[in-house]
Amino acid sequence: MDWVHLLASRNTRMKASEIRELLKILDQPDVISFAGGIPDPALFPKTEMADAYAAVLDQSGDAALQYSASEGYRPLREWIQGEMARVGVPCDLDNILITSGSQQALDYLGKLFLNAGDTALVGWPSYLGALGAFNAYEPRYDRLDPKSNRSAQDFNDAADGRVKFAYMSVDFANPTGVTLDHQDRVNILQLADDLDIAIIEDAAYQALRFDGEATTPILAMEIADKGNIDACRTIYTGSFSKTLSPGLRVGWVVAAKPVIDQIVLIKQASDLHSPSINQMVVNYVARACFDEHVAKIRTAYMARRDDMLRALAAHMPDGVEWTRPEGGMFIWMTLPSHLDGAELLAHSLREERVAFVPGQAFFADGSGSNTMRLNFTNANAEQIETGIARLGQLIAQTISNA
Amino acid sequence: MDWVHLLASRNTRMKASEIRELLKILDQPDVISFAGGIPDPALFPKTEMADAYAAVLDQSGDAALQYSASEGYRPLREWIQGEMARVGVPCDLDNILITSGSQQALDYLGKLFLNAGDTALVGWPSYLGALGAFNAYEPRYDRLDPKSNRSAQDFNDAADGRVKFAYMSVDFANPTGVTLDHQDRVNILQLADDLDIAIIEDAAYQALRFDGEATTPILAMEIADKGNIDACRTIYTGSFSKTLSPGLRVGWVVAAKPVIDQIVLIKQASDLHSPSINQMVVNYVARACFDEHVAKIRTAYMARRDDMLRALAAHMPDGVEWTRPEGGMFIWMTLPSHLDGAELLAHSLREERVAFVPGQAFFADGSGSNTMRLNFTNANAEQIETGIARLGQLIAQTISNA
Repeated sequence: MDWVHLLASRNTRMKASEIRELLKILDQPDVISFAGGIPDPALFPKTEMADAYAAVLDQSGDAALQYSASEGYRPLREWIQGEMARVGVPCDLDNILITSGSQQALDYLGKLFLNAGDTALVGWPSYLGALGAFNAYEPRYDRLDPKSNRSAQDFNDAADGRVKFAYMSVDFANPTGVTLDHQDRVNILQLADDLDIAIIEDAAYQALRFDGEATTPILAMEIADKGNIDACRTIYTGSFSKTLSPGLRVGWVVAAKPVIDQIVLIKQASDLHSPSINQMVVNYVARACFDEHVAKIRTAYMARRDDMLRALAAHMPDGVEWTRPEGGMFIWMTLPSHLDGAELLAHSLREERVAFVPGQAFFADGSGSNTMRLNFTNANAEQIETGIARLGQLIAQTISNA
Repeated sequence: MDWVHLLASRNTRMKASEIRELLKILDQPDVISFAGGIPDPALFPKTEMADAYAAVLDQSGDAALQYSASEGYRPLREWIQGEMARVGVPCDLDNILITSGSQQALDYLGKLFLNAGDTALVGWPSYLGALGAFNAYEPRYDRLDPKSNRSAQDFNDAADGRVKFAYMSVDFANPTGVTLDHQDRVNILQLADDLDIAIIEDAAYQALRFDGEATTPILAMEIADKGNIDACRTIYTGSFSKTLSPGLRVGWVVAAKPVIDQIVLIKQASDLHSPSINQMVVNYVARACFDEHVAKIRTAYMARRDDMLRALAAHMPDGVEWTRPEGGMFIWMTLPSHLDGAELLAHSLREERVAFVPGQAFFADGSGSNTMRLNFTNANAEQIETGIARLGQLIAQTISNA
């Protein structure tokens, strides 16, 4: 049976995520891995989750095990409404939809906006999962750089007038760890207004700020400017994967009602609704201990970020640069331009048993071969010191051999 | 903010499911509803589910709350492998992928095969959720009728050679309750071989057979003929929604490895994976009590089917026809050709407080205005007798007024 001639053209653009393929290999216990982007399971609220599943099944078992509304579980949407108000985004329940992780929101937004050949503006680099989700709808990409002063006209010319949205991970971004400052956000909003396109504000890591001042979400800035969310072009995506648990697959989208109405239809056609029971459990756990639990995670991850920054300062040779994130899960490293992250990974796995993610896959234009992503949330202090020391030595050798 | 010019063209084909919109209205307690397609929550295995969530979190809490593989939880795939062998489908684990309900499998298969303008062969009528899922990929539809002898050439001519798959709900289909007999299945397989297209065998209701002989799945027939699953064009979709619980959103796809490999990529890009904990719980409950639990459901639903068939025979006037399903959840009614199911529903809700689903939405060509779907799984004997009596009276009046 030859399947190739039956496949839709979009499939030629869908390939295995290098990160997820890597994760399969990295189960060997002697490998120190900075490759994943996964939370430390030791910090999962296991007791609270067990209590919540028991309580939800005991008190509302029929609803928990039954089909439910595509929009999502109302009390959870009410909790999210409260959280959004806290970050400057007042909205109605009709502005909120529950998704199966924020990854699903990205898929749905690609489905909502992108015809084949339309242009999506993304960072160079961008979250790999966003590129993967959008690729299914066969877009072209152009570079969104909030510090550039490229004109709307220039973007439109490059895209034959078919720019649909600007996508950005805004806080401690995956993969760079970088947070967009206030002026960056003003610039993106201005560009989107000029182009009359949507903004997708990926706030998956927002709650994981360790230090520094919280930056106002783009959607909050826009609401302050335009009066109410239904007049806004910014679509905000959030997630419980980095705070409570990724295994339940619960995220959300906040946007103008016409956008939510359309995504409800997309969700109905794609998986009917997110699991009823998991939404009810997330609601239960969030109400019981969200702030307290997130404070605990932040403290733990901040210490690991500090460990990794200290180790990088101690062990990396001249010519290597890295970011200093104020939160999140990742540090982004830039090697001298003649070094190749993928080759370095091959050496590192073979000789040093240290893993990371080469950065090139995060670039929609295939550049960035001298970059790499380091995760600091799922390794302990000793692993961080040892792993970064080995990596520093390998990079120093590679530089001097080149 | 005007969104219309930003939306991808596929959105013009996505509209609210009439059934799901109806379900919102039907919460009034005095309405007798045969409209939904939902299981009776009184039959959910609540104790077993509570035990399973507690055990899974206690024994494997880290894995249950963590990210997991896009393919799905291996022990659950192993259990499914055993079940598939029981229905004549021997396969490897690599032939099995877990989805978020079988609805998601239909979305993914649309995404896998359909370019805009490709043709999907579907029944007249078909499962509404399948049409909804496929619509997002902008296909044309042509009629799949296993009892017709239309030639492959004729289908190809109508589709400019762009037929991609034949989709069929095979056992006690939603909405008709009809089961494809052996010869129907032979005919579909022959047609698909002649056209060199895929077959999507929707087996969501397969386990709910009340009486009669089990019919061999198309995939089993094809494996018997071609030697092994990797040589087969049939893609089988299954679900735990009708047996254990729809609220956990766990279903599966079984197909040749190249198909599964590609769907894994689609799943990775669309929601990473189905919830880890729910897959582990379904595995736990399925191993603890699947056969026993399904036997209990079958007995309960069979009694309701019998109640409804008895009530229909007693109360429906001449000129009304209905199916006699050997399982599943639905009876399909055909009214005299001048009657309209949607108008009848409006009258029925207003005057008789009885709900059902008008059949037209299930027809890709917009025909079938004189048909309707009756669900018998979520009403008790008294409601069935009363509701069908009222409906019979209304239909008799409507016929005599026409």
